[in-house]
Amino acid sequence: MAQKSVAGPEIERLIQLLAKLPGLGPRSARRAALHLIKKKDQLLVPLADAMGIAVREIGICSTCGTVDTSDPCTICSDPKRDQSVLVVVEDVADLWALERAGAVNARYHVLGGTLSPLDGIGPEDLNLASLIDRCGSEGFSEVILAINATVEGQTTAHYIMDQLSHLEVNVTRLAHGVPVGGELDYLDEGTLAQALRARTRF
Amino acid sequence: MAQKSVAGPEIERLIQLLAKLPGLGPRSARRAALHLIKKKDQLLVPLADAMGIAVREIGICSTCGTVDTSDPCTICSDPKRDQSVLVVVEDVADLWALERAGAVNARYHVLGGTLSPLDGIGPEDLNLASLIDRCGSEGFSEVILAINATVEGQTTAHYIMDQLSHLEVNVTRLAHGVPVGGELDYLDEGTLAQALRARTRF
Ligand SMILES: [Zn+2]
Ligand SMILES: [Zn+2]
Repeated sequence: MAQKSVAGPEIERLIQLLAKLPGLGPRSARRAALHLIKKKDQLLVPLADAMGIAVREIGICSTCGTVDTSDPCTICSDPKRDQSVLVVVEDVADLWALERAGAVNARYHVLGGTLSPLDGIGPEDLNLASLIDRCGSEGFSEVILAINATVEGQTTAHYIMDQLSHLEVNVTRLAHGVPVGGELDYLDEGTLAQALRARTRF
Repeated sequence: MAQKSVAGPEIERLIQLLAKLPGLGPRSARRAALHLIKKKDQLLVPLADAMGIAVREIGICSTCGTVDTSDPCTICSDPKRDQSVLVVVEDVADLWALERAGAVNARYHVLGGTLSPLDGIGPEDLNLASLIDRCGSEGFSEVILAINATVEGQTTAHYIMDQLSHLEVNVTRLAHGVPVGGELDYLDEGTLAQALRARTRF
């Protein structure tokens, strides 16, 4: 017996759409839909409203590629940020993580992924042309490649290095090492070797 | 640096509401929000629409307590179902699970939880009065208690048994035993003992 015959196509469609969210499978999507329907006033109505607002007001910054309600975004139009430093990230989630850490007060550029020839993702599929343009015109003194330490991430970092080699800009990348609070015997050997090579005076 | 200063209060609110869904924590809610914004036309717009429809059209069946777009619900108003058998479940999710299994073609009653004196949940907090009413007026020949085999579930089942003892209705419950495909050495001892006691001829 198909579920739609029990609860109606409206609920079935809600479940199917919720199941497309990362982190929710078919089973948890059913639980989420039920939870929403039971908490109609406290959760379903506000969430439907918030999504409607997102549909109408949230877009992609045409300068840096992050998501925001204004274009240029809050970060790109913030005069209190260091205009001479650009932080390059793969994804908006990485930008958010760096902002939560409060580690840098600079501008950003969101690539939207990494080069991956095997998956057919080339330079034209990422926000790379606009990165090269910005680096040529905005006069940054430093470009920090805050790109994941994966094979694809490092391939992408090397590509960017090459493309920027004719400019007078310092290209840097995040340090490898032991995570703060990390236990040595849980770390992979590559990280341990890097942390040892890059050791600093106590 | 608070996140709202980066992406605007609209996105922050969307994340906070998504984080209230079962199965999503703060981190996965951020990922879900980003995914929605990136897939605006394919996912965010349809999901916002589906939630708006749910807000306007989905409610609780005043007879059985399940969720549906009609009241009485599709099940309660289906003449092809066996009108003499009532299946009592804790939650709508259990009703859906039984319907997916296609195991029974009867009517349902959703309790909305189980008795739990420690949590302050008494008979008046569940759909118990309406269950007793239905059993007195609708002339069921069998009431199947498809209630979880937990302490609270069994307490609730015994309470219902007591309340129905004056009626001429067979009250039954689900069999205990080894799950189909289940391996014996992963089962708890209580289940194994029950399965052995209730053994059937091969
Ligand atoms: Zn921007
Ligand atoms: Zn009903």
